[in-house]
This record gives sequence, structure tokens and C-alpha cells, in this order.
Amino acid sequence: MSIKDDAFSIMHAALNSAMPDEAVKKALRELPETSGKIYLTAIGKAAWQMSKAASEILGERLTKGICITKYDHVMGEIPRVVCYEAGHPVVDENSVSAAREAIRLVEHLEPDDLVIFLVSGGGSALFENPAIPLDELQDITRQLLACGADITEINTIRKRLSHVKGGKFAELCAPAKVFSIILSDIIGDPLDMIASGPAYPDHSTNTDALNIVRKYSLKFSPVALNLLSEETPKELPNVENHITGSVRQLCKAAEDECLRLGYEPHFLTASLTCEAREAGSFLASIARDHIHDGKAQAYICGGETVVHLTGKGLGGRNQELALSAAEGIAGLDNVLLFSLGSDGTDGPTDAAGGIVDGNTCSILSEQGIQISAVLQNNDAYHALKKCDGLIMTGPTGTNVNDITVLLIKPEVL
Amino acid sequence: MSIKDDAFSIMHAALNSAMPDEAVKKALRELPETSGKIYLTAIGKAAWQMSKAASEILGERLTKGICITKYDHVMGEIPRVVCYEAGHPVVDENSVSAAREAIRLVEHLEPDDLVIFLVSGGGSALFENPAIPLDELQDITRQLLACGADITEINTIRKRLSHVKGGKFAELCAPAKVFSIILSDIIGDPLDMIASGPAYPDHSTNTDALNIVRKYSLKFSPVALNLLSEETPKELPNVENHITGSVRQLCKAAEDECLRLGYEPHFLTASLTCEAREAGSFLASIARDHIHDGKAQAYICGGETVVHLTGKGLGGRNQELALSAAEGIAGLDNVLLFSLGSDGTDGPTDAAGGIVDGNTCSILSEQGIQISAVLQNNDAYHALKKCDGLIMTGPTGTNVNDITVLLIKPEVL
Repeated sequence: MSIKDDAFSIMHAALNSAMPDEAVKKALRELPETSGKIYLTAIGKAAWQMSKAASEILGERLTKGICITKYDHVMGEIPRVVCYEAGHPVVDENSVSAAREAIRLVEHLEPDDLVIFLVSGGGSALFENPAIPLDELQDITRQLLACGADITEINTIRKRLSHVKGGKFAELCAPAKVFSIILSDIIGDPLDMIASGPAYPDHSTNTDALNIVRKYSLKFSPVALNLLSEETPKELPNVENHITGSVRQLCKAAEDECLRLGYEPHFLTASLTCEAREAGSFLASIARDHIHDGKAQAYICGGETVVHLTGKGLGGRNQELALSAAEGIAGLDNVLLFSLGSDGTDGPTDAAGGIVDGNTCSILSEQGIQISAVLQNNDAYHALKKCDGLIMTGPTGTNVNDITVLLIKPEVL
Repeated sequence: MSIKDDAFSIMHAALNSAMPDEAVKKALRELPETSGKIYLTAIGKAAWQMSKAASEILGERLTKGICITKYDHVMGEIPRVVCYEAGHPVVDENSVSAAREAIRLVEHLEPDDLVIFLVSGGGSALFENPAIPLDELQDITRQLLACGADITEINTIRKRLSHVKGGKFAELCAPAKVFSIILSDIIGDPLDMIASGPAYPDHSTNTDALNIVRKYSLKFSPVALNLLSEETPKELPNVENHITGSVRQLCKAAEDECLRLGYEPHFLTASLTCEAREAGSFLASIARDHIHDGKAQAYICGGETVVHLTGKGLGGRNQELALSAAEGIAGLDNVLLFSLGSDGTDGPTDAAGGIVDGNTCSILSEQGIQISAVLQNNDAYHALKKCDGLIMTGPTGTNVNDITVLLIKPEVL
């Protein structure tokens, strides 16, 4: 196999491991035995795929389920599961009515009953039962965004204005047990942030919440202010959380496939957050100093780099990372780097990412294209298109950040 | 030992290995036997230290030597070695007269004779015998700098206007053998670039040289133009090159010391060239994903990062890298990162670099200092000063780029 074949094989293995259905199937192997009934609530952009997988595995053991996903994301009927579509990224009336259906499903269960709670990205907007009128909630959200509050501050407020966020949905399920499977799309898997943590204890305090109102001089109604003084759950003994399909798993699957293909895998990080082009430069530096080691090696990173726009071109963070690396590995034989978004979309483009090798730079140079100028104009898409360097997957059905792999394969092997 | 003790131990081991005297002593172990006479020529900012070490080892076997270094860099007399001081970074009359002395020393030797040629950074300016008048050479250098020619283009021209650059000094030594010891201060150790390669074959052609004159419409006298048509040496069978004290050796010594202290060393690269603060962020990401591995690990990088000034503060690339990493490892126990320039100087400061750990961020925060704001103002020096984060070595006497080490030491160990 060529180094490029290896690359595509690693990509496929990694993406397959992070598919919602695979992730749910794997996690359900650890489902505890119960003599009670099993219910299901699924929220987020991958809720339909996750519900379908759970329904297939559970069969008639599942009593009833509710699936709440984004508009146009329901792909068909699922036995014993009622599907709802709702607003994203902004909460709408359907988010609220669907959440209320879910609450009705779980609020009078027995101690032996079990709620399988499937969580994926987008759940914050799709699943909401506000403790204040919806338009007031929307106004407060606008104030929070406008004043420059960070995401932790925003969530500290939102959790207190909701009947389901910040662990409160899990409280509603009690005394039943909650088996939560979380498809993480946030670096570091902060369970209180993903979908605003409906089944995870909240560690912020009501003092924090009131300080935020003061800090930004926010305008709250007396009812809303009163809600901020009520404490959120700090412990949820009825919940068991399983993180799955995270970027870490993406990296692990890549690592396994690298091993299978004869590469010595080096997992560096699953939480890359630096500037995309600088990450490419860093990885190219690693390549330059390991090509003479005499063994096949793979360096694996997951995360979500950033791009600071300096131009008006077309591209995405994975494409910039790859193109920048191409400059640093120019002229090196048997070195390849790819970087892609697991959702199949990189920036505002139809590509998932970029794939480059030691020839990329000279192929572009022959066409009069200088990589430094392309990066300056944030136009990686058009440059990669001219050297067969775009990775096109289409929407993959999952969303667990990006993966970047550097392959070094000496010719002697 | 604390993780901080380990860090200083690793720094010292790395710096010691890159000291010019140590480097020369190590390389001279491979000096070939000869029945002829041994001469010495040393050029560059470390020429005095290198000559002194060679003189101590060779004793009376050394017939005569010439040492050419920067003003105020001669630290005393060396037996059998005449020391000269000359201009740097701009060639001056003393550079020329000293180079002519060196040529007189080596130009009528026998085949069995041996010239030990010690090269360190700064040699390009300190050692020159121009083939055109000095003021014409200075004018051409100014033209090359003004037109935006890159360093390879500048050297392609300069080598042809010199009697010593581009392998010509080694030709003058023939039929004697040349044993060249190079203390590399350029990433990747390009031997034709260090001191403009007086003892290394030149791979540029006279066609290249003439194209550069045309490309930038340079103004050359007929004599100078004529010199561009003369070919430089493409092979130098009488030369043996030993690179020593390079950044790679700095990394290797750090690696050995890490091993000795019980860390699993991971050498990443010796050619880091990305933005300093982004390298810090990348390394912090690695730390975050390996603190739970349950074993002590070290990640080692060498190279020379860059800083793009956005503010008016005081700092250097190593201090920025360290401070940026401090933000990424905030709150992590038993993680430390240091980065320093091997010459003991980082940017326009009296510090060699920075050392940070998981507490650095909160110590600064308690003093009202936000790292992101400090980096925006390029003011790492003052921030690190307030948290005992500056590495102060004073001038070390060597100059082989920077070294950065990330240490992870779980408490259980």
C-alpha cells in the first residue's frame, strides 16, 4: 500500500469509530441489568442515529422513547420511539414542547426503571423547558452574548432559568436510574457544557450567577432574578455517564489502525487549540527530524485549531493546517499529513480537510502558487484543489472535532 | 528531587554539551593520525573558546594557529595561536587582514599536513578576503538586502566575490587535509550557510548568480560581473566536516539527562520554526492529554521560534513560548515547561528564557495579570519576573539555538 492508501485507511477507521450508531452500540454493552422498564430520551444533532442504534439493540426491552433533533434530521420511523424536530441553534416552541413530552415520559418512574439518555451536540437549543417565558429567555441570551460574557458565565445563568439543564433532567428521572451516553463535541469533554449538562451536576453556585448579573449590569425580571438564587443539583447519585465517540476515541481508532499498518503511533494530544497554520508548521518540524529514524511512524493529534482571518479566500482550519505543513515538508519523500473535520465539513467549504505530502509545494509552485501567499489570503481550498489535496467525504453523520495525522514511511520498508 | 530541580539539571546538562570547548574536545577524538604538521584556523564568535580547547588537547603537536573572533572576544593568550579581533556583523578591514594572515598560514602546506578549521556563527563577517574592493562588496551587500533577495541568493553572490567563502578556503589549504569542526547555529545545520561555508562545496551555479543580478536589476562593476562567471568548488576531497554542538546535540543531551532522571523522553524536533506562543499552546495540549498516563515523560524540542510583535513590552521568543504554555497547563499539578536560548540571551532581555508550571497562571492572576493581555503586549519578561519564571544564566559562551522541554511527573512516582 502507498502512504496515501494508508492515510485513507486511517481516516476511515477513525471516522467509523466515531459514528453515533457505533458509539451507542459500544456503550450499551455496559448497560446494567434491570428488572424494571427501560425508557429512552435522545437529544442533539445525532439523536436520530443514536436512537435508531439503541432501538435496534434493545428491541422489545425498550418500553418507549423520545428523540429530539434538528429540523430535517429525522430519517424515518424508529420502533417504540417518537421523533420530534426542533430549533437549532436558537431554542423555539418545538424545543419546549418536545422537552415537555420527555419530562412526561420520565417523571413518574419506579426505582428499578432505567432511562437511557443519549446526548449529542446541539442539545442546549433542541431540548429546553424554560422556567421563564421563552421570549424573556431569548432576551437574556441576547444580553449575555452582547456583553461579552464567556460560555461558562452564559451557562451559569442558563442552567438556573431552565427546568432541564444543569442536572435537572436527571433529577426529574429519579428515582429511576439514568444511563447517559454522551457523544462529545467539546474539547476536553466537559460534561456540564455538552447540551448544558441535563444529567450532570452543576458546579457553579447561585453567588456566581448573581455576580454575573452585577458584573455585566444585566436586566432581569424579578422572577428571573429569584430563579438565580435557587441552587442547582450538586450530586446526581442516579446517573451513570458514558462519554463516547469523542475526539479521544477518534485518535485512539487512528492509533490502532496505524499500528495495524506497521506505523509506530505517537499520540500527542486530543486537545489541540492553537493557530491552524502554526500546528502545521510544528508537525512539519517533527517530520523533518524523524525521516531518518529508519522506521515508519505516525504522529496523531485531535482537537480544534483556530484560524485568524487575514484574507478573503476560501478555506478551513484543517485545510490551512495541511497546506502550512506542506511548506514545511517540501521535498521530503515518504512524508504525508492529513487533517480533517470529523463532521465532513471544514470551514465554509464542501471539503472535510486537506492531505499533503513532500511534493505538494513543488506542484503548486509549478502553477505559480506560493503557499505563504495563499495562507495570507486564507485561500487554502483553491490551492489544495489544484494539487489533489482536498479530502471530500460529504456529511459523515458525526461531529467530534478534528483529527490530524502525520505519517513518515521510509522507503526501505 | 522536585520537578523544578529536574528541570535545572536538564538545562545544565544540555548547555554543557553545547559549550564550544566540550564540543571541540569531543570532535578532536576523531582527529586522524598524521606524520605532517598540524595547523589551526578558528573563525567566529566562539573562535577563542574553540582555539583554547584545541590548543589544550593538541599541546606541542600544534605548529601554529590563527584565531579570528569578534571585538572584545579574545579572553587571553593561547599557546602557539595568534588571536585577531575583527568586525561583526559588518565585514571590516580587520576581517580582511586577519583572513589574509590565515591564508598565508595554509597556502603552501604539504599533503601530510593537517589544518584544523574551527567554525562558529559570525564567521561570514569576521573572515573575508574579498575579490573586489571592500567598499564595492559593502555596496553590493546593501543592494542585495534592499531588493529583498533571500539568504540563499545573497550567499550565491557573496561566495563568488570572495577568496575564502564557498569552499575556497579549503581549496587554498590543499594539498593539506582539512579537519573542520563546525559549531552550528543555523537550524538544520546547512554547512554551506554557516560562515558562508569556507570549507564546504558550493551547490549554486554561476547561472544562478547571473540570474539573481538580472532578477533584481543589481548594479555590478564589470570586474564583479566577471567574477560571477567563475565556478565555485563542487567537490572538496581534502575536507572532513564534523558538526558539533548543534541544537540536535542540545536535544540529545537533554534526552540523556531526562532518561537518567527517570523520565521517558520524547524527542519531537530540533527544527521548530513556528510562532513562539503557538508552540507553547501546542506543548500545553500535549501536557493536558498525558498527565494521566501514570508515568514521568519529557517532550523535547529544539529550534528557533518566531515572535510577531503586536505590542511594546519586553520579552523574547522563549519567554513568550513559556508564558503561553503556562496558560494551557493552568491548574495541572506536576507539569513544568522551560524554554531557553542556549546563548543565555532571549530577545532584548537579560534572561535566557522562561520556566512555568501549573501554578504560574494563578500566581499571575492573583496579581491581576492576565496572560493573554501580556502576550498581546509582548511583555512576557515582566510577567515572568513576577512569578519567579525567568531563567537567568548570563552569557553561556555558546550559541546553538533554543531548547524547550515539557516535563510531566505524576505524583505517585
